[in-house]
Amino acid sequence: MLFNLNELSKSEYDKIINRSKAKIKKVTPGVEKIVEDVRKRGDSALREYTKKFDRADISDFRVSNEEFKEARQSVGAEVVEALKNAKKNIEHFHKRQLKGGWSYKKGGAKLGQIVRPLESVGCYVPGGRASYPSTVLMATVPAMVAGVKRIAVTTPPQKDGKVNSTVLTACDIAGVDEVYRVGGAQAIAALAFGTDSIPKVHKIIGPGNVYVTAAKRLVSDEVAIDLPAGPSEVLIIADGSANPEFVALDLAAQAEHDPDACAVLVTTSKELATAVKNKKINGIILVANSIEDAISFSNEYAPEHLQIMTENPGKVLKKIKNAGSVFLGNYTPVACGDYASGTNHILPTGGFARVYSGLGIFDFVKFISVQEFDKTALRRLSRTIIALAEAEGLEAHAKSVKGRIK
Amino acid sequence: MLFNLNELSKSEYDKIINRSKAKIKKVTPGVEKIVEDVRKRGDSALREYTKKFDRADISDFRVSNEEFKEARQSVGAEVVEALKNAKKNIEHFHKRQLKGGWSYKKGGAKLGQIVRPLESVGCYVPGGRASYPSTVLMATVPAMVAGVKRIAVTTPPQKDGKVNSTVLTACDIAGVDEVYRVGGAQAIAALAFGTDSIPKVHKIIGPGNVYVTAAKRLVSDEVAIDLPAGPSEVLIIADGSANPEFVALDLAAQAEHDPDACAVLVTTSKELATAVKNKKINGIILVANSIEDAISFSNEYAPEHLQIMTENPGKVLKKIKNAGSVFLGNYTPVACGDYASGTNHILPTGGFARVYSGLGIFDFVKFISVQEFDKTALRRLSRTIIALAEAEGLEAHAKSVKGRIK
Repeated sequence: MLFNLNELSKSEYDKIINRSKAKIKKVTPGVEKIVEDVRKRGDSALREYTKKFDRADISDFRVSNEEFKEARQSVGAEVVEALKNAKKNIEHFHKRQLKGGWSYKKGGAKLGQIVRPLESVGCYVPGGRASYPSTVLMATVPAMVAGVKRIAVTTPPQKDGKVNSTVLTACDIAGVDEVYRVGGAQAIAALAFGTDSIPKVHKIIGPGNVYVTAAKRLVSDEVAIDLPAGPSEVLIIADGSANPEFVALDLAAQAEHDPDACAVLVTTSKELATAVKNKKINGIILVANSIEDAISFSNEYAPEHLQIMTENPGKVLKKIKNAGSVFLGNYTPVACGDYASGTNHILPTGGFARVYSGLGIFDFVKFISVQEFDKTALRRLSRTIIALAEAEGLEAHAKSVKGRIK
Repeated sequence: MLFNLNELSKSEYDKIINRSKAKIKKVTPGVEKIVEDVRKRGDSALREYTKKFDRADISDFRVSNEEFKEARQSVGAEVVEALKNAKKNIEHFHKRQLKGGWSYKKGGAKLGQIVRPLESVGCYVPGGRASYPSTVLMATVPAMVAGVKRIAVTTPPQKDGKVNSTVLTACDIAGVDEVYRVGGAQAIAALAFGTDSIPKVHKIIGPGNVYVTAAKRLVSDEVAIDLPAGPSEVLIIADGSANPEFVALDLAAQAEHDPDACAVLVTTSKELATAVKNKKINGIILVANSIEDAISFSNEYAPEHLQIMTENPGKVLKKIKNAGSVFLGNYTPVACGDYASGTNHILPTGGFARVYSGLGIFDFVKFISVQEFDKTALRRLSRTIIALAEAEGLEAHAKSVKGRIK
C-alpha cells in the first residue's frame, strides 16, 4: 500500500500509528486459571498443562547434563561457531552499558550509589513452531554480565519431551545450566511462585506469545517482569540514496516473523516508493514531503526497529526521539541486531519505545543510593530538614535530627 | 517486641519478612469503574469524583498563575529556603546518575547507545490529610534533570478547591507550572487517557494510596508506570556502638508515617536491644548472634530504608544486596534522605528492593542502541547472522544479508 503521508486521513493515520498490540485482555481469564492452578498444585499442574498444550509427557522438568551433551553433538559446527561469536559480541556491547557505583563528598557528607545484581532471574524462551537460540543469548548474556547468580531458562518441550538442541546449545554457550522443559503461562507461574521442581525467581524476562504476556502481567505483584512483548515491527526512513532492493529485503524479513508484524517505509523519494511497491512486498509505503516530516512521523510511531537509509543517517539520528534499536545506512539490516552485532533484540513494540528501553544491563541490577553524614554535616542540613518535616507535619522526623545535634 | 533472630519460628520469621503490601486486589473492581468512567466521560467524570471524594467543586482543573503567586506569598521564608536548598541537592545527586551516550568502533562497524528523555510525565503527589511538598521535588526534579519537556503534576484539592500552598510553591521552585487539582484514581485515569482539560502523558510516577496504586496498575497497558508504592519501612542494623536514643528516634519517625509502616531493629547487642525496648517505641527488635546473621536477614527483608549504625558501616555496606536507600552511621537519620541529602525518597517497599531501584534519572530516559555497518563489516559478520537465521528458519532474514554482500 502506498500513501502520501501528508494526505492521510486522520483515521488512516491513527490506524497506522495504533498498530496491533498483544491482545492480553481477551485471554486473561483463561490464563488466570492456569496461573492459579500452578500456584496451588505445582508440578502436577505443570505436567497436566504440558501434556495438554505441548503434547509431551514430562517426568523430570530439569534438563539433564546428558541432554546438554547430546544437544551439543547434534548441532552443526557452523551454528556452534555462530552462537559463540554472537555471544562474544553481545557480551562486549552489554558490558559497555554498565555504569559502576560512584560517590562524592560535600563537607562532612558522603553521597553515592552502589550497583547490585538481582539475585535470580527466569528467562522465557519461546518455542513451539520455531526455535529461538538467539533469544537465549539476548536474555541470558546481559544477566550474566550484570552478575546475576542464578539464571534459569524455561522453554516449551517438543512432543518427544526434549528441548530443541540449538536452544540447549545456546544455553550451554551462554553458561546457563538450569533449563526447564516447560512453556506457556504455566512456565511463568512456576517461575513466579515456585514448584517442587522449579524454585521461584525474582524477575521474569523474555518474549512470548499473548498467553505468556498475560501470565507475566498476572504475576507482576509477586515478581518483577520486563516490558510487554508484541508483534515485531520495522520502520525505515529513506531518501533517494537508499537501495530499493535492500529496502525490500528488510521489509520482507520483518514480514516473515508473524502475520501481525508491521513493516513501514517512509520516504522522501517517490521513485524509491514506486520501486519498492513494484516488488510487491507486504508493508505500508508512505511518501513524505520532507525528511523532517518523515522523522516526526517516525517519532510518533516509535518503532521497535528503525532503519535510517539516507545520505547522512547520523544527521537524522540526532532528531530521533523514540525507537528501540536503530540501524544506519544501506549495509545495516535489522538482521544484524537480531543476531550478532551485540545490541539486544528484546525491544519495545507497539509504541512502547516512547517510554521503554530495550532489554539491557539495567534490567538486571538495582541502583542503591547511599549517604553518610557526620555531626557537622547533619547540623548544616538540619534547618532544611526540620523546616520541611514540620511543614509536612512529621514531627518525629524533625526530632530525629534535633535529637542528634542538640 | 523483642525476639532472638535465631530463635524465631518459621511462621514468626515469615510474618516479619512478608510485611504488608498495598492491598490492590480488593479495591481493583471499584477503581476500575472510576477509571473507565473517566476514560469515557472525561472532565465531567473528574468533576463528579472530585466532588464525591474531595468535597470540592472544581470549574478549572489547572492551577492558575495567580494561584501560584498567592501560594508563594503565603509560605514562610524558611520553608521556601528549605525547598530551594533541597531542590539544589536533589538536582546535584541526580545529575550524577546519568550516563550519557557512548559508542565504539569494531572494524567497519560502529555500535553505541543514545539516551533520550521521555517526552511527557505525570507526577502524582498525594494530599488529603497531609501535604507532601518534598514528594513534588523528588518526582519532578529528576524528570527535569533528565530533560523531560512536559511535566504535569496532579494532586487532590482541599475542600476549598485550592491546592496546598507549600505543594504549589514546591512545583514553582522545581520549575513546573502545569499543575492540576485532581487526585485519586480519577487523576491517574485522566493522565493516562487524557481529558479536555488534562492532556495525556507517556508515564505516570509518584506514590499514592492503594486506590492510586490500583489505578496505575489498571492503566499500565496505556502508559508506563513506576514501581508499586506501599507502606514505608526502615530496617536498622546496629551493634553496640549505636546510640540507643538515636535508634529510638528513627524507629519513632518511621512509625509516624502510617499505621502499616514497619520499623525493625536487628542488633548484635543485647544491651542496645533492651535500651531501645525500654523506650517503648513501636517496632520489632531482633537480637542476632552475629553481624553476618543481621546482614543476611536484612538482605532477605530488602528494606526500603536501611540504616547501618555499626562501628564500621562501610564494611557492612559491602555485603548489602538489597535495599532502597542506605544511611550510614549515627548521624544519618532517614530524614536526611526523606528531605534534603539529594537522594530520592520514592523507593521500593514491601521487599521490592530485591528487584527495583528507587526513582532515578533512568526512569525518565530511554537507552536506544545504534549500529552502523559498512559492506566489509557486514560481510565479516554475515556467516554468523546467516547461520543463526537459517537455524531459526528465518530465510528472509538470511536473505537480507546475502542480498547485500553478493
